[in-house]
Amino acid sequence: MRLKIAVLAGDGIGPEVTREATNILRAVAELGGHDFTFVEGLIGGIAITETGSPLPKATLDAALDSDAVLLGAVGDNKFNSLTPDKRPEAGLLQIRQALGGFANLRPSTAYKALSASSPLRPEVTENVDILFVRELLGGLYFGAPRSWNKETNEAINTMRYTRDEVVRVARIAFELASKRRKKVTSVDKANVLEVSQLWRATVTEVAKDYPDVTLEHQLVDSMAMHIMNIPRNFDVVLTENLFGDILSDEAGVITGSLGMLPSATIGGAVNLFEPVHGSAPDIAGTGKANPLGAILTAAMILRHSANLEQDARAVEQAVHKVLDEGYRTADIARGGESITTQEMGKRVHQAL
Amino acid sequence: MRLKIAVLAGDGIGPEVTREATNILRAVAELGGHDFTFVEGLIGGIAITETGSPLPKATLDAALDSDAVLLGAVGDNKFNSLTPDKRPEAGLLQIRQALGGFANLRPSTAYKALSASSPLRPEVTENVDILFVRELLGGLYFGAPRSWNKETNEAINTMRYTRDEVVRVARIAFELASKRRKKVTSVDKANVLEVSQLWRATVTEVAKDYPDVTLEHQLVDSMAMHIMNIPRNFDVVLTENLFGDILSDEAGVITGSLGMLPSATIGGAVNLFEPVHGSAPDIAGTGKANPLGAILTAAMILRHSANLEQDARAVEQAVHKVLDEGYRTADIARGGESITTQEMGKRVHQAL
Ligand SMILES: CC(C)[C@H](C(=O)O)[C@@H](O)C(=O)O
Ligand SMILES: CC(C)[C@H](C(=O)O)[C@@H](O)C(=O)O
Repeated sequence: MRLKIAVLAGDGIGPEVTREATNILRAVAELGGHDFTFVEGLIGGIAITETGSPLPKATLDAALDSDAVLLGAVGDNKFNSLTPDKRPEAGLLQIRQALGGFANLRPSTAYKALSASSPLRPEVTENVDILFVRELLGGLYFGAPRSWNKETNEAINTMRYTRDEVVRVARIAFELASKRRKKVTSVDKANVLEVSQLWRATVTEVAKDYPDVTLEHQLVDSMAMHIMNIPRNFDVVLTENLFGDILSDEAGVITGSLGMLPSATIGGAVNLFEPVHGSAPDIAGTGKANPLGAILTAAMILRHSANLEQDARAVEQAVHKVLDEGYRTADIARGGESITTQEMGKRVHQAL
Repeated sequence: MRLKIAVLAGDGIGPEVTREATNILRAVAELGGHDFTFVEGLIGGIAITETGSPLPKATLDAALDSDAVLLGAVGDNKFNSLTPDKRPEAGLLQIRQALGGFANLRPSTAYKALSASSPLRPEVTENVDILFVRELLGGLYFGAPRSWNKETNEAINTMRYTRDEVVRVARIAFELASKRRKKVTSVDKANVLEVSQLWRATVTEVAKDYPDVTLEHQLVDSMAMHIMNIPRNFDVVLTENLFGDILSDEAGVITGSLGMLPSATIGGAVNLFEPVHGSAPDIAGTGKANPLGAILTAAMILRHSANLEQDARAVEQAVHKVLDEGYRTADIARGGESITTQEMGKRVHQAL
């Protein structure tokens, strides 16, 4: 198996966590006799500083020329006063759009070993296994017109979806659900928003092609509550872009730390893989970052871009093992003993 | 003290919970020698069925002619296939707009007696006392253009805010915070949305007039997580319309049941008071509805429209008392013994 991976480490803790993730990928390649190559590129704040652009052309070319893109994190407080189009985050939104992946998969899994790290009661999180399918290229993130008019002191953003955009992401949700517990919960605000009405009608139509999958609709406000009350009720959760952003972070409390959460974006020219956590500038360089989100993201590369399901599981099991053995980074140590980013990476490597 | 209250009971459990709330208001009037009068009006699904409109003119006139409006709940599954402008919810959005209140206050309080009803650990919810200030007349709810074009299969909604709309609601948040724990957390998505950048810049400016209040900014996705992890960190939480809708429902898990949550909308011609819960058609008429949200909403009428702070507290303490004594409606009984809507109302009355 040959795989060319573009590694865009980005800002803050991005470089330190992607380093551990690529180490694991190298180990998998060696164990399985695969040929993985890595190409590095600049993105985000570091790219602005070095080239003036949050997504330099060289990075985009390298990404488009690869089989998978592993992105660390973007975001740097020093750009906080700039408008959205000039910030590090613009590089992330641009590469998402350029690669074309529209279905962002975000698993939210409860780890028994981490149940004490969750603010939720252990009996609430037990055996929870949710897969968010977040639409990633539509809605308020990309809708035009958008502006902040400093003369009139008015700002607007546009939430926009077409039927086709909803169909394609809904199909992915139903396909995935049919291989899991056969339930899709679609989230919207159809009692207020026209966009949500289109969303609900379209998802209902797509559901007809998947008679073995149950579809339920939830309003986003109720969902924000239900997913804390009885997370076990959910299997695949299908959302538009912003609702998925909010709800998948919220569901991070089921796992216990944002630092544990991986994501994969599929459906486009090149798949894009990112841990869910941000650049966390406050802990960058201190060895406190949790590399497990990035390592689990590497497992998603194996699954979704290399078709190496067994290797993906092996990495996930290695993560379970180190957690069961009691190793913790600071974010999940609850004030107890913790190991560094690098040590955690090594432990996972050994467990493999 | 004279007060004319328009009671718009609405759909589902609306009538049964507002009945208990008005009973409590009558008791307060009697005890304190106040003169409270009640005028009833139709709104929501029941108004559509009886008059063809979700907000009949007679209702609007009665509301505008009153000192305070108490609204039960709107929403009925039988209108689910209609577009937003024809649904029961349209009546709610129209009356919100007509009354002009732009600051929706939603307290999220932990009750020790109910801590077992929350999916959160008791040590997480202990002493939590958050006040959401949700902007209620702007954003995606009211922004134009909005449409679902069935020819092009495209739908749009518009998120729009002006500086003035942000200033006025921010002032209310800071005023309230200065009488509480002196902290405002403003929620936005300023790394992506221009509207959020206007929001953040404006709130930062308003904060200068309140040097004794600390302002922090949180991105809505992180906030959805933080508010579950360490809810005690928050005092006043200031949000735009949709973010407040989502986050305040989410924070309902701190209290343990949506059925417990009151709200008050201030700043307009006539204040509007609504329990946060919906019409819950599945339990309407079964005596299972929790009237405490509506009763606590009545307390907010006393506080914000009658300036009867002591009476407001007395009602709130009566609610605490019945809960401490172990009385529970079904939603907070955790499978144990429960009393009916009406019995709960009576218990609070007695505790007064
Ligand atoms: C950094 C930001 C633009 C991004 C988003 O909102 O999509 C992040 O929050 C995420 O969820 O990946
Ligand atoms: C019923 C609905 C229109 C309403 C809203 O979204 O504002 C409700 O969810 C609320 O929070 O009061």
